Amino acid sequence: MPETHLEELAIMRHSLAHVLAQAVLKLWPDTKITIGPAIDHGCYYDFKFATPISDTDFPTIEKEMKKIIHQGQTFRRDELSPKDAISYWKGKDQKFKVELIEDLVKNENVEMVTNYVNVGPKGEDTFADLCRGGHVESTKQIPVDGFKLMTLAGAYWRGDEKRDQLTRIYVAAFASKEELDAYLTQMEEAKKRDHRKIGKEMDLFTFSELVGPGLPLWTPRGTLMRHLLDGFVWELREERGYQRVTIPHITKKELYEKSGHWAKFKDDLFRITTRDDHEFAMKPMNCPHHTQIYNHLPRSYKNLPQRYAETTMVYRDEQTGELHGLSRVRSITQDDAHVFCRQSQVEEEFLRVWDIIDIFYKTTGFGALKVRLSLHDPEHFEKYLGTQELWKNAEDAIRGIATDRGISYVEALGEAAFYGPKVDFIAVDSIGREWQVATIQLDINMPERFDLFCTNEQGEKERIVMIHCAVMGSLERFLSTFIEHHAGHFPLWVTPIQAAVLPVADTHEAHAAQIASDLMEKGMRIEYMNSSESLGKRIREGETQRIPYLLVIGDKEIAEGTVTVRNIRTKKQVAVPIAEFIASVTNDVAARKLVLSIG
Amino acid sequence: MPETHLEELAIMRHSLAHVLAQAVLKLWPDTKITIGPAIDHGCYYDFKFATPISDTDFPTIEKEMKKIIHQGQTFRRDELSPKDAISYWKGKDQKFKVELIEDLVKNENVEMVTNYVNVGPKGEDTFADLCRGGHVESTKQIPVDGFKLMTLAGAYWRGDEKRDQLTRIYVAAFASKEELDAYLTQMEEAKKRDHRKIGKEMDLFTFSELVGPGLPLWTPRGTLMRHLLDGFVWELREERGYQRVTIPHITKKELYEKSGHWAKFKDDLFRITTRDDHEFAMKPMNCPHHTQIYNHLPRSYKNLPQRYAETTMVYRDEQTGELHGLSRVRSITQDDAHVFCRQSQVEEEFLRVWDIIDIFYKTTGFGALKVRLSLHDPEHFEKYLGTQELWKNAEDAIRGIATDRGISYVEALGEAAFYGPKVDFIAVDSIGREWQVATIQLDINMPERFDLFCTNEQGEKERIVMIHCAVMGSLERFLSTFIEHHAGHFPLWVTPIQAAVLPVADTHEAHAAQIASDLMEKGMRIEYMNSSESLGKRIREGETQRIPYLLVIGDKEIAEGTVTVRNIRTKKQVAVPIAEFIASVTNDVAARKLVLSIG
Repeated sequence: MPETHLEELAIMRHSLAHVLAQAVLKLWPDTKITIGPAIDHGCYYDFKFATPISDTDFPTIEKEMKKIIHQGQTFRRDELSPKDAISYWKGKDQKFKVELIEDLVKNENVEMVTNYVNVGPKGEDTFADLCRGGHVESTKQIPVDGFKLMTLAGAYWRGDEKRDQLTRIYVAAFASKEELDAYLTQMEEAKKRDHRKIGKEMDLFTFSELVGPGLPLWTPRGTLMRHLLDGFVWELREERGYQRVTIPHITKKELYEKSGHWAKFKDDLFRITTRDDHEFAMKPMNCPHHTQIYNHLPRSYKNLPQRYAETTMVYRDEQTGELHGLSRVRSITQDDAHVFCRQSQVEEEFLRVWDIIDIFYKTTGFGALKVRLSLHDPEHFEKYLGTQELWKNAEDAIRGIATDRGISYVEALGEAAFYGPKVDFIAVDSIGREWQVATIQLDINMPERFDLFCTNEQGEKERIVMIHCAVMGSLERFLSTFIEHHAGHFPLWVTPIQAAVLPVADTHEAHAAQIASDLMEKGMRIEYMNSSESLGKRIREGETQRIPYLLVIGDKEIAEGTVTVRNIRTKKQVAVPIAEFIASVTNDVAARKLVLSIG
Repeated sequence: MPETHLEELAIMRHSLAHVLAQAVLKLWPDTKITIGPAIDHGCYYDFKFATPISDTDFPTIEKEMKKIIHQGQTFRRDELSPKDAISYWKGKDQKFKVELIEDLVKNENVEMVTNYVNVGPKGEDTFADLCRGGHVESTKQIPVDGFKLMTLAGAYWRGDEKRDQLTRIYVAAFASKEELDAYLTQMEEAKKRDHRKIGKEMDLFTFSELVGPGLPLWTPRGTLMRHLLDGFVWELREERGYQRVTIPHITKKELYEKSGHWAKFKDDLFRITTRDDHEFAMKPMNCPHHTQIYNHLPRSYKNLPQRYAETTMVYRDEQTGELHGLSRVRSITQDDAHVFCRQSQVEEEFLRVWDIIDIFYKTTGFGALKVRLSLHDPEHFEKYLGTQELWKNAEDAIRGIATDRGISYVEALGEAAFYGPKVDFIAVDSIGREWQVATIQLDINMPERFDLFCTNEQGEKERIVMIHCAVMGSLERFLSTFIEHHAGHFPLWVTPIQAAVLPVADTHEAHAAQIASDLMEKGMRIEYMNSSESLGKRIREGETQRIPYLLVIGDKEIAEGTVTVRNIRTKKQVAVPIAEFIASVTNDVAARKLVLSIG
């Protein structure tokens, strides 16, 4: 989407938040208003209601909003001194607005604030909001059939659980009814694919009240998938000269003081005070530890590149309210790698990683990924480590590599890591949503901070560079995307249970159990479902668990030495000789095929 | 060793500590004395010297000690009121003794303390120490040629780094000169095999000042060994129906309050306060987390046993002074497993684990392990969870299993875990030292605390039991033992670099490099050592790195299509056709052979 269109959309969405607040105040005049920003897909507004509302009130609110839109109200900008503004909002009995102005004075020392006032058809003031501005000219510019109230959610004033509890109304808002409908359909589809629901039905992971939120516990089936996916990444890396290393999950804070992470991310770290009264932190990333392995021996140019890979958990102290299934967790498993190489080796190493990413995402069914070059924000260079020159060289190098690769890409200013520019890869899932997945980062700053070098051909110290490259990135986040993209119907090689064996009746049990055990012997992952439940119920159970093949075994199959294979995706049934079934599965797994060959 | 002999030895060693202190006071009368207990292999005494001594003073001290022993001094018991004792030790200007008595009064409310006074040949008092007693009758009973002053070490008064710094003198002491000599030889050999030294020479692991003590960083070679060993354990487990699970390294403290670990191990936990002000802990063990995976679904007797395995790091807040190489670390990798089963399945599951342990330790070169049944301490039942009856049944069950297994074992009272009895396995290394390695624990208490049950054939709730079983236990500790046992000369399958290729001169480089690359192609782990250094130097380097086979390639080898294989253990050299070398290594690795087949 072009930038300008995105900006217009944000202005429309934010204006709609004013409309929402106006409607709410009309319906419940003693409501306290707070703030209403535009967000992806729409906007929200946080209110403190005198008596709770529910989503059964949505039609009434929407009706009121449409009335306001049809009136073509305009937005008038009123500039006030803080003193006058406070008195204005005190008069309206809106304590949150008063607090906002007081803080603006205290923290930013402002001398003027602005109210935006809606003006109705007869020139009357209909609603005012304390706001920095950016609105449509008339509410008529808001597509009247392009929005929908979506959900109510709890929120705290200023995100602080010790302050007032507020009610947040989420609104979906688009430029047209068609876009809204497409979004609602996507949401509907997304709900069916929700990885939390499918993860439960397939028994992949669970959470425990006693262990705590954001800390998934992986069941045998989920762990198996993690090992299969991570094993594939390792296979691709091993072929390309990577070696595994192992580090602990904690460190003295000195490591992060040196790396610069302490100053930058202090609040996101889980911090520990030891019995000896030393300060430690749980690692939120692996790079500083890996530099210590590089640096424990003198390195010659002959030893480079050193390519370290490690799949390991990192920890971030996310706020409880921000946690969501697997997509936002506190224990994040990274399939991380760091290449320590000479400047002259950067391109080759970048392309090597790029190959791994391409192969991995094609094989897991995502097809080609979108590519974004994430560069520094030239207006806020103070957010980054290093000199302008270092950054220019690094960004030019990355742009050159992307061009050589012959792919199309976008550049995004301000999206770089604080230690260097990066290439981000974005997957588009089967219902059109975009997810940032893999990343390759060029790091010009850690090598300076940790004094990483090699001895070159002339016997001189030569500063090296680091490349950070995660393929799945976070296994948890990847799996949430992978589950929703496939709606639980994974390629056979990564499916935890590949087939279930279902005897029709108890007379077929002995034969069916033997087949189940033969298949397991061949290395297949099989579930045996005995005949204590009806066949129909077992088939539904197999479907819920997304077991791709259900093998039904009755008199006919026993007589003919076949199995009736039910493909749960196509719902087709075919009778095939057992050897043929084994050959098909074995081939599909070995070839990491995306689709099922039978049925 | 029979218990009574061990007790006699301890009495002799402690008496020797008095002799040491007497000798020190004779030589340096203004020394302050503290305490001198018997320990394994001897005793120590902590002194505060007015001016530092060094180990060059050891012969003088030993000479003085021998004089005392030859005199046949006796030990007289003097009972004193605390008041008189304090005045006695103040008179001797011994402040530590005064503090000890004051504390005895304060903490234990004692009404009488004892001095033990050495009496010389003329009936004169030669030395006094505040002591609870337990001495030989005459110093002549101390074997005069059975002891040796070993080392000086720093220590803090009462182990507190804020108190006085003391000098500890370690003494080796045995019942005879022969036993002492055997021990000294063992120590000499142990020094050569020190895993810290060999680990560095082979580049297996390293430590970083910035990351902190007790937190090893595993290099590519060390990590490879970890994966090979752990992969073997997993292979043995997978064949026996185990499944892998995955848990995070932290938890809310509520989990440990429920399990009982919080009350028991609070001080050993790394504790975290989150930004939301919740209290978390790093896991010091995995069992409580695993119960949450068992318990997230209702379980029928048909689903049992559930066998969960996971190799994962646990964290313990060890004091810095207690850390030692890999044998005592803060980040401990456990190859942990928990079996959730019915009471009736305990024996079969125990034997299944026992098989794994037997196979693993034979294959890693330790031979048969000693077995110890670790039972509760009947005099301190308050240290354990659960009822007397639960414990009796559990201990009887374990005794029955050990008897059925037909092995010899010892029973050790007071060595049980706080939640149940266990079987401990002890390896004897190649220089005769004993190391506790694997363990199988029967847990009757966690299932109660977490209400773990299955539904039985009658549809009733049935309480289950847990079996805890680690094979290597701590990978770090296992590797320290494994390295020292083999002195770095590992079986080929677990050796990080299996062969080095050494061209004699630069004219042989192309051919040699081709051979190196062919061998790698066959899956061997090869180091290529080019001819920039002399052949002799490269051979010594290969020996230092414990690369088992050094393949020398010169004119003759090129002409004949052979390699000259130098076996670094036997120092023998044989020329073999390349294909033969490949076949030998491939076979030895596949068979996990303990010895090298060539040379």
